Amino acid sequence: MSDVVLINPFEVGPGDEAAALAYWERAADHLRRQPGFVDTRLHRAIAPGVRFPMVNVATWRSTEAFLAATSDPAFRALVGPELGRFPHHPGLYEVIRT
Amino acid sequence: MSDVVLINPFEVGPGDEAAALAYWERAADHLRRQPGFVDTRLHRAIAPGVRFPMVNVATWRSTEAFLAATSDPAFRALVGPELGRFPHHPGLYEVIRT
Repeated sequence: MSDVVLINPFEVGPGDEAAALAYWERAADHLRRQPGFVDTRLHRAIAPGVRFPMVNVATWRSTEAFLAATSDPAFRALVGPELGRFPHHPGLYEVIRT
Repeated sequence: MSDVVLINPFEVGPGDEAAALAYWERAADHLRRQPGFVDTRLHRAIAPGVRFPMVNVATWRSTEAFLAATSDPAFRALVGPELGRFPHHPGLYEVIRT
C-alpha cells in the first residue's frame, strides 16, 4: 500500500496566527504518536493576502490509518472546540506526477 | 536563502480532470526548465467530494526565481487562455514546523 498525503489549507484571520499555531501543535502532538503517522510539515505563507495563510502537509501510511487516528474520540475532544475557528479544507491525496 | 514552497490548490469540475492534467503538464514542462526550479509534485484527491481535487506542491530556490519564471510573457501566453477554467489559490510558503 502506498503512503497517502494529507493536504489541509487553513484560513486564519488577522491576529489569529498564534492561536492557529497552538491549535496545530496540539493536534500534531497527538497525531504523531498514532499508528501510521509518517511526517508532517506546517507551511506559513511568506507574504500576506493569500487565501490560505497556513497549509499542513502530512504523510500517513494509509487512508485507514489517517481515518482511525482522526476519528478517535480523544482526538475529536482535543480539536473539536476550535474546529470552526479556522475554516479548513482537508483532503487525502496521492502523487500522480513529479 | 532558503527554498520556498509553492502550494496551489485547484478546483476541477466533474469531467475536467484530463484537461486539468494537460494544463498542469504544459505549465510544469515550461517551469522545470527555468532558473531556480527545484521540484514539483502534483497531488490528486483519493476520494471524490473534496474542495480541491488537485493540489500542486513545488519547491523553488527563492521567491524571486518563482516570480521571474511565472511573470515571464512566454509562460503567461502558455497558461493564460485556461487560467480561469480551474480556479486556484496559489501561495508561497516556508515550513515553520515539522
